[in-house]
Amino acid sequence: MDEALAFDEVASGVFRGRTHAGYANFIGPYGGVTAAQVLQAAMLHPERLGDPVAFTVNYAAALADGEFEVQARPARTNRSTQHWMIELLQDGQTMVTATLLTAARRETWSSHEVRMPQVPPPQDVSHPAVRPRSVEWIHRYDMRFIEGVIPGRWEGQLHPDSLTRLWVRDEPARSLDFASLTSMCDIFFPRIWLRRATQTPLGTVTMTVYFHADADLLRATGDDWLFGQVRGQGFRNGFFDHSGHVWSRSGELLATTHQLMYFKE
Amino acid sequence: MDEALAFDEVASGVFRGRTHAGYANFIGPYGGVTAAQVLQAAMLHPERLGDPVAFTVNYAAALADGEFEVQARPARTNRSTQHWMIELLQDGQTMVTATLLTAARRETWSSHEVRMPQVPPPQDVSHPAVRPRSVEWIHRYDMRFIEGVIPGRWEGQLHPDSLTRLWVRDEPARSLDFASLTSMCDIFFPRIWLRRATQTPLGTVTMTVYFHADADLLRATGDDWLFGQVRGQGFRNGFFDHSGHVWSRSGELLATTHQLMYFKE
Repeated sequence: MDEALAFDEVASGVFRGRTHAGYANFIGPYGGVTAAQVLQAAMLHPERLGDPVAFTVNYAAALADGEFEVQARPARTNRSTQHWMIELLQDGQTMVTATLLTAARRETWSSHEVRMPQVPPPQDVSHPAVRPRSVEWIHRYDMRFIEGVIPGRWEGQLHPDSLTRLWVRDEPARSLDFASLTSMCDIFFPRIWLRRATQTPLGTVTMTVYFHADADLLRATGDDWLFGQVRGQGFRNGFFDHSGHVWSRSGELLATTHQLMYFKE
Repeated sequence: MDEALAFDEVASGVFRGRTHAGYANFIGPYGGVTAAQVLQAAMLHPERLGDPVAFTVNYAAALADGEFEVQARPARTNRSTQHWMIELLQDGQTMVTATLLTAARRETWSSHEVRMPQVPPPQDVSHPAVRPRSVEWIHRYDMRFIEGVIPGRWEGQLHPDSLTRLWVRDEPARSLDFASLTSMCDIFFPRIWLRRATQTPLGTVTMTVYFHADADLLRATGDDWLFGQVRGQGFRNGFFDHSGHVWSRSGELLATTHQLMYFKE
């Protein structure tokens, strides 16, 4: 992850990065690492104010392996919040668009409404018997599924729901930051594969992450396990979405996340 | 709503609109109508391809009453999808940023995972005994609350959850389109008011809408009642989010929506 997040500032607010072979997916890189790279470019911007609070990334085209440029622009800077517009380009073509809100956070009344379910601790959960098709990026995460692994047999069995619960951490272990948390928000396999047990071609078109954790809470979380839960919502005419939550091992809500995927048929 | 959605194209891809007194909120306009206006500018753009599928709008500053310009730019046009970056400006200052995905949708396997709950029909639900503080925009909607009205007494009672279920439609009645559906996705009162029964100052900073309905389904829905359900998620250090769903009266999922609000203390 540290290698993937290395950038050169080639002009004011323009950062050159590159795809990383360790995060290769079927075609191009794992979307989570691309999201992390787009976020990181804004984090590196000298005018950046505060921590990420809300981030939306839109995948406009499949990245080619190699170099890219990220242009991050603070469209609006207020006293304690800042709104960013970001584009990732290859050969002058927009491949990713994004918006980011950063803010200087203050301590206030806090009381989460969604709660982490009671689950066995990660050391008591074995790796899934069935691993997803071998792509490189899944080896960058240690995943321990409690329920909702992708199907072992692709024989078109239909399921009414697609709940997944898993423990996850970076492999190798690495202290959590906003970029790596963003990447982990994309860890959930496509819900439609769980619903249909059919490997229809698909891809994420947009993902939003709301960070309930600030930098202090991420530091306190360190390289410990995170717990993720996700469930599908609407599936209709080429697109479906899911809603997910990511907690620290101790049950602190770190992020909520939603994404929309296209699928072929 | 039709008046609020009237624009003049003042340059290629630049549309001049204005706030509408009928949608006034405490300060500036109701955020839902601003979201609808930002979406509508892209809908009017001569290069627009297909229907909205995913829309994220970020409120960067409070709009002043009066005119504004919306600049909509197709950052990437593919064969069947298009990615937009949009800004709303007043006096040359960015007030709103947004990204939009539009797509030419095709019929595919469809089967929603979230289902509309069993609730009494709208004609059997009376108006709430307690109306929220009188601001103009709430008179643009007929709202029938099944549960989760904002508190009748603001005496700091704490509640563990903030579920709201309501029937809603435009007032006056109006055939549904993507802009008005977007506006209705912002109909839900701030979840923190239900959790705390305290009127802390607050505002929406970002909202995302995933459209599961295409134009045909919106046309079939017409001016009938919609059913909305929403629940809070994380509440911590100045920000909280909610996750919501909007169905047609017959139980078709039209949109899923998420938003993040800031709050003061």
